[in-house]
Amino acid sequence: MPTAGILVIGNEILSGKVVDTNSPYLCRELRTLGVDVERIVTIPDEIDIIAQHVSAMHEAYDFVFTSGGIGPTHDDLTIDGVAAAFGRKLEQSESIAGRIERATGKKPNASQLKMAQVPTGAALIDSGDLWFPLVVVENVYIFPGIPELLRKKFESARERFRGVPFVLKRVYVTRMESEIAEQLHELLTEFPELHLGSYPKISEESFRVLLTLESRDAGYVQRALDSLLGRLPEGAVDRVE
Amino acid sequence: MPTAGILVIGNEILSGKVVDTNSPYLCRELRTLGVDVERIVTIPDEIDIIAQHVSAMHEAYDFVFTSGGIGPTHDDLTIDGVAAAFGRKLEQSESIAGRIERATGKKPNASQLKMAQVPTGAALIDSGDLWFPLVVVENVYIFPGIPELLRKKFESARERFRGVPFVLKRVYVTRMESEIAEQLHELLTEFPELHLGSYPKISEESFRVLLTLESRDAGYVQRALDSLLGRLPEGAVDRVE
Repeated sequence: MPTAGILVIGNEILSGKVVDTNSPYLCRELRTLGVDVERIVTIPDEIDIIAQHVSAMHEAYDFVFTSGGIGPTHDDLTIDGVAAAFGRKLEQSESIAGRIERATGKKPNASQLKMAQVPTGAALIDSGDLWFPLVVVENVYIFPGIPELLRKKFESARERFRGVPFVLKRVYVTRMESEIAEQLHELLTEFPELHLGSYPKISEESFRVLLTLESRDAGYVQRALDSLLGRLPEGAVDRVE
Repeated sequence: MPTAGILVIGNEILSGKVVDTNSPYLCRELRTLGVDVERIVTIPDEIDIIAQHVSAMHEAYDFVFTSGGIGPTHDDLTIDGVAAAFGRKLEQSESIAGRIERATGKKPNASQLKMAQVPTGAALIDSGDLWFPLVVVENVYIFPGIPELLRKKFESARERFRGVPFVLKRVYVTRMESEIAEQLHELLTEFPELHLGSYPKISEESFRVLLTLESRDAGYVQRALDSLLGRLPEGAVDRVE
């Protein structure tokens, strides 16, 4: 199954000025597609740190998604960091420069031309009505930090990432986690391949623990669910979804 | 100045089932206290991976905050991972076992006693009305994943983390980022120690770019702000906060 790493780049996240909504979006979408996200790392806008993490994730995962640090200003260093990670130079993309000129009706200024710099050999993926394409270097997909733009670009490339999705069942339990921990342990002994999550909630009215049962094999999940429901005490389940 | 790393532990985050609100909270609070968060890493519930990251962050930062993976079930492995990171055994904390017994009025069962296991030599910090204390091993603060509990525990320990806070000025600019990039570059040449952020917004009515100017020296920020306002074109500033 394909694996992924997400690299969130931006001092504004680390300093608490902006909340990262991009990695939660990517995690949800990639899960739906059947891609296993194994790591999310948030780092500052520094070329060396970007290069080091891009390089490590490139080796470790099938897909790498970067978010942020693309643009015309001093703190937009993601393109430089990706180029450094692969030991590539930057070159001006005539395709992007042409799009900027057509979009603005003027020759690009120096700051706009900075946005046309890409690592040599980068692939460009058109993104619907956006004039700036998605830039891809090997297995590294370079996304902007602005959530609306990231989502549009992801949509334009999403079919590239499709694997075998998980089947998910949710069981809402009215007991405390410590009262059902033993039954969960037994369930995992019977179904060792099950992905079992147990999430206590303290501000819900109708249940105290949300259990999630997942597998890429729908029959396996159903058998595990039946086994779990047989193990839990009478009246311990509020509902199953 | 004190530095920090945040380690978010939980398959539920990586699989997109739960959005991590704890690291944004910690980033905001630590920024207010004057602590520099340098890294956020989200990892799965696996002892070896937890141990490896706790160990690396312990070496790299003044404070390490872990979120999640504390509890009585099979996927709660943070305590084991922290113990492994420091090469320590687990021991039953009689203090915690006693609190559980007083809170529930019964002898703890096996699952509850699992929550009384801590690495040898761990420090315990009482947290207001919560019966479960904050567990600390060297510079590693072990927080629960449930946001309400994490916040209560953080509040009980926050004065330990106080450094020298940043002074922040916000400038709301009505031009595109590419139209002011050159002026920002000049500003940083004059004020090389300034922390300058530039954040384009595409769904705001009154401005297009939010600039943030920060330093721990209030006079330095004010001089940089005056210099910036002198550089920007007439009418380019919507407001300053």
